[in-house]
Amino acid sequence: MKGLVFHGPGDIRCESVPDPSPKDARGAIVQVERSAICGSDLHLYHGAMPVEEGFTLGHEFVGRVVEVGSAVHSVRPGDPVMVSGVIGCGECPACQRGEVVRCARQQTRVFGVGQGLEGGQAEAVAVPVADHAIRRIPEGISAEQAVLLTDILPTGFLGAKMADIQPGDTLAVIGLGPVGLLAVMCAQLFGPAEILAIDSVPERLAVAEELGAHAVPADQADAVVMEQSGGQGVDAVIEAVGADATILKALQLARAGGNVSIIGVSNSAVAPFPMILPFMKDLTIRSSLVPVPALWPALVPLVAHGRLHPERVFTDHMALSEGALAYRRFDAREDGILKVLLDPSK
Amino acid sequence: MKGLVFHGPGDIRCESVPDPSPKDARGAIVQVERSAICGSDLHLYHGAMPVEEGFTLGHEFVGRVVEVGSAVHSVRPGDPVMVSGVIGCGECPACQRGEVVRCARQQTRVFGVGQGLEGGQAEAVAVPVADHAIRRIPEGISAEQAVLLTDILPTGFLGAKMADIQPGDTLAVIGLGPVGLLAVMCAQLFGPAEILAIDSVPERLAVAEELGAHAVPADQADAVVMEQSGGQGVDAVIEAVGADATILKALQLARAGGNVSIIGVSNSAVAPFPMILPFMKDLTIRSSLVPVPALWPALVPLVAHGRLHPERVFTDHMALSEGALAYRRFDAREDGILKVLLDPSK
Amino acid sequence: MKGLVFHGPGDIRCESVPDPSPKDARGAIVQVERSAICGSDLHLYHGAMPVEEGFTLGHEFVGRVVEVGSAVHSVRPGDPVMVSGVIGCGECPACQRGEVVRCARQQTRVFGVGQGLEGGQAEAVAVPVADHAIRRIPEGISAEQAVLLTDILPTGFLGAKMADIQPGDTLAVIGLGPVGLLAVMCAQLFGPAEILAIDSVPERLAVAEELGAHAVPADQADAVVMEQSGGQGVDAVIEAVGADATILKALQLARAGGNVSIIGVSNSAVAPFPMILPFMKDLTIRSSLVPVPALWPALVPLVAHGRLHPERVFTDHMALSEGALAYRRFDAREDGILKVLLDPSK
Amino acid sequence: MKGLVFHGPGDIRCESVPDPSPKDARGAIVQVERSAICGSDLHLYHGAMPVEEGFTLGHEFVGRVVEVGSAVHSVRPGDPVMVSGVIGCGECPACQRGEVVRCARQQTRVFGVGQGLEGGQAEAVAVPVADHAIRRIPEGISAEQAVLLTDILPTGFLGAKMADIQPGDTLAVIGLGPVGLLAVMCAQLFGPAEILAIDSVPERLAVAEELGAHAVPADQADAVVMEQSGGQGVDAVIEAVGADATILKALQLARAGGNVSIIGVSNSAVAPFPMILPFMKDLTIRSSLVPVPALWPALVPLVAHGRLHPERVFTDHMALSEGALAYRRFDAREDGILKVLLDPSK
Repeated sequence: MKGLVFHGPGDIRCESVPDPSPKDARGAIVQVERSAICGSDLHLYHGAMPVEEGFTLGHEFVGRVVEVGSAVHSVRPGDPVMVSGVIGCGECPACQRGEVVRCARQQTRVFGVGQGLEGGQAEAVAVPVADHAIRRIPEGISAEQAVLLTDILPTGFLGAKMADIQPGDTLAVIGLGPVGLLAVMCAQLFGPAEILAIDSVPERLAVAEELGAHAVPADQADAVVMEQSGGQGVDAVIEAVGADATILKALQLARAGGNVSIIGVSNSAVAPFPMILPFMKDLTIRSSLVPVPALWPALVPLVAHGRLHPERVFTDHMALSEGALAYRRFDAREDGILKVLLDPSK
Repeated sequence: MKGLVFHGPGDIRCESVPDPSPKDARGAIVQVERSAICGSDLHLYHGAMPVEEGFTLGHEFVGRVVEVGSAVHSVRPGDPVMVSGVIGCGECPACQRGEVVRCARQQTRVFGVGQGLEGGQAEAVAVPVADHAIRRIPEGISAEQAVLLTDILPTGFLGAKMADIQPGDTLAVIGLGPVGLLAVMCAQLFGPAEILAIDSVPERLAVAEELGAHAVPADQADAVVMEQSGGQGVDAVIEAVGADATILKALQLARAGGNVSIIGVSNSAVAPFPMILPFMKDLTIRSSLVPVPALWPALVPLVAHGRLHPERVFTDHMALSEGALAYRRFDAREDGILKVLLDPSK
Repeated sequence: MKGLVFHGPGDIRCESVPDPSPKDARGAIVQVERSAICGSDLHLYHGAMPVEEGFTLGHEFVGRVVEVGSAVHSVRPGDPVMVSGVIGCGECPACQRGEVVRCARQQTRVFGVGQGLEGGQAEAVAVPVADHAIRRIPEGISAEQAVLLTDILPTGFLGAKMADIQPGDTLAVIGLGPVGLLAVMCAQLFGPAEILAIDSVPERLAVAEELGAHAVPADQADAVVMEQSGGQGVDAVIEAVGADATILKALQLARAGGNVSIIGVSNSAVAPFPMILPFMKDLTIRSSLVPVPALWPALVPLVAHGRLHPERVFTDHMALSEGALAYRRFDAREDGILKVLLDPSK
Repeated sequence: MKGLVFHGPGDIRCESVPDPSPKDARGAIVQVERSAICGSDLHLYHGAMPVEEGFTLGHEFVGRVVEVGSAVHSVRPGDPVMVSGVIGCGECPACQRGEVVRCARQQTRVFGVGQGLEGGQAEAVAVPVADHAIRRIPEGISAEQAVLLTDILPTGFLGAKMADIQPGDTLAVIGLGPVGLLAVMCAQLFGPAEILAIDSVPERLAVAEELGAHAVPADQADAVVMEQSGGQGVDAVIEAVGADATILKALQLARAGGNVSIIGVSNSAVAPFPMILPFMKDLTIRSSLVPVPALWPALVPLVAHGRLHPERVFTDHMALSEGALAYRRFDAREDGILKVLLDPSK
């Protein structure tokens, strides 16, 4: 079959790879129908996260079950399914609740980043612990929407949830890539009076306005936040970049007693962090990789009932065979590109 | 001055009453510019709540400060203000937080229901503990919106808050009078996937649809709730009627582990209540009179930023001098009347 | 084998019953080593809850696994185990979290009360969904303690948890039977400044004092609660009787804004309930049958580390063959009897 | 009058200073009867926090009111009182709730650290916003206990509260100075199954054992925590040192999904902080200076009812005139010294 394979920084190729085979009785094979490129895939693309050469990338994908092991009982061949981009052992109490990041056996893994799980930017994927990782796509949810349910919509929702937004609050969201924009969309579920959406890219600011936020160019962030909050800082901040400077900015923009929610992935093993700032300001800081299946019970009905339209973030539809180009364009942020949906049948 | 005065069940008259004078150094006089009739005023109108003859009614009113006692420092003559329909001693820790229903001196009182506080369906009102009860109407909030902030918008919000709605939940709201409709509006702040709005009046069901709810005729409530919740019952119920039958229905419609929020005022001193039902279903039941000032910090920015448009519930604008007619029409629910705004200058 | 069998109100006999056989591949057979009589068993004894003649009673028991179905993987023959007195389908998400009262398939059942599950006041019991219902007794927990973990210690803990006690709070506990006393013990885990323990039996008041509570004879409850709370009422009340009068008393003793936690089982299908009281006082009322397995993760380490000594409530040790006498004495509250532990080997 | 005056790092002298005079109508003068030296005073002593020469130190003190301004109504001359070591503007909504660290006017200040508030290691102190900062010492609380209520008992309690401890949890406390030990004492209010108390000083470990914790020598912390938590890490960590290494250790010892509560004061403006660690482990990190008056409603009844005995931390009683020696001995941790109580009358 075909897959997007890592050959070194900046070098992704669509080429033939071995067909997947089920891991064991609890595993399944999913034929991929749609897959996406995530901002965090660019860390691999840049060589910032080491991955072995020849590895197939991608952790956001949906498709159809083609084969299940003997112990799988929740899905059957032919079922249209979505696969959690992050999985755990699938059996411990935390995994049973879908909280895969708290897996008691510490088997939290992501597809397509080199932890033994080949990825979904391919024609098919072997999925272990299928009853845990796979969910039938319910009525009323499109494949395009389902792809977003496998990682970045839950991540945006987690960002909003960890920000502990109360009705009437003023919120800042730093970074309006696809995850930041979905954080804006999900934050609206918590009834804020105002969302200050901060970025330096005009196209992204425009999408945030469309989602009901007040767009704030990054270079005006301090002034606007202080003005809109009467000099207090905002009730909550969602950080969706992961850079040292934006994490520090999040601490600064929050009011005393506020919440800081960090969903941006930090590359900096040892970031400078002024611990005296949270101490003097009584801050609560939450950060986490996303426990995808734990958030499905909330998000699936919201998408199915038309309360959330995450598909708004897809700007580009390309064939899997154009994968190398897709990475290049996404990395260069060409033409206001926000997120690419890949079709393996093309 | 003129005021709407109680003369017995069904007998409200607009007539001359003495001008109010400040209670003490902490009091103020407010000249009323807009006032409203509340569903709970009908309890008085029907004689279900005893009130002395000659008493001026009304607990929803806004206007302009004309006089303040020497110890008042938060408002001045000329200020456009709203007055909390429910007040406490104004000094205990609970009152300082605006939680007037928890007043440590047990001085929780409502204007215009006979606890020594003449009401606001009049040209002017004496307001005690003005720093506690009165708030300047902020920029961007109309007088019409402000009237709703004095009681029923906070009540609807309280109903939603006590229902502890989580994003993705399915909610039922029983009773779509003005309070129930504002509960629907406020429930949307908490991100439910679906709101099942139950009533028997088609006009009210239509307004609920307009607010994004799924309208359910009362006689189909059981069937629709069970169908929409896969036979489980809903995650939360807001009861906005106060009748024995609707309170019982709320307990029945909630799923095991669900929340029941009761904002309808019960007339029944001793309602039949099957205690075994909450026990077998693990229910949480909350009920409360509304602590208006405690909810202003959330609601004021939401109205000011245009996130809530509570004025939608006003269907009729009348002169104070037409008060008797207004009560009669409101009581008869004539012509789809939902809520009447009274203008004392006419 | 021998078991305590229901033959009509007041008529329990220890007699021969058929040996149990496993329900299916997910079931197990447990040989009972210790079992107890619960206050709620007296409802059956009195004929207040209908149960078919010939049924074996008892839902509090521990023992040793003697046989497991082919699909059981968490316990093996020979394991010392405790069995949850309340079980669900064992497979839905709620049951996976141990929240058996919220079972999505509405299969919440109690052993020994006639829902198809013969009870544990016997030499052996057939347990369905063994992986869900059975837990190995961990190191450091005695059989006597484990019996209490199958129902009434979790019930007392639930009572404390639903009361939402905050450090420094004043709490009232109404009813000092074994469950009420364990509620006192568990309430101490939440840091109250004072627990007012109310009952009319001097021996029970004495045990409450021993557990660190302030003993309050029932006829002085109103006066003492008001004095100790400065006339406000208490922050939280745990009701552990289930009678109409004590439930009403709980609503009365709580302060405005307080919590009422009802773990007493109400026999009264239609209790008089003054709904206006919670409304005027801003009360939160919670009630539930106990979801035993959901509470084990908290309670097992507390007992194992010696932080809780629930075995304090056992006052009488008797042989299973003396079961009829045990019921009679327990019902008559003879000689300060609090709770009876039965030994099936005698 | 006499006071302990800063003359440079390591140079504290007891000498004559001007008598205080009330700040304004809202201020009061308190004659000090007992005062204490706080671990954070050593930061000043070491010159790590700049303070002007000639400044009087101390933020933990109690005494008797000798004079009040005309607007003060909650205390009178002659009243025995405690004074919050941390105060705000005293008027904004946050200050009214006692949450002085969230003061809307950003006037959060500490006595005796150079923000215009001369300290309480003296014979008398001028206290601004007296109704806000001062509380009558209730019946049943000794002066010695009250001194601890002005700062470090609330700090220890805050540490426990921010750790969000649930009954049955395993907790680690890093650093067993007086604040860490009071954090251990307060953590017991939340029902943990086990507290692992970590320090390198044997005397301090012994006190922690006395308070019901499991003492863990610092060099065995990793091994013991992992063993006691089955390799998972602990549910919550309270950091009571403030050093870069101990903050990092706190992040490492917490389990995935755990809570980290930081009450140690960080001197390091820019600490190295591996942001990827909280992200991969789903941590919640809370830190704050202590809002003393907000915690009094919980702590005062707990001390008054004998549930907490914070006075256990005082190991040394000295005269104010011996202040220089007291600082020197406390700094050198001589003879197992934990905390010094100073008597200005000697």
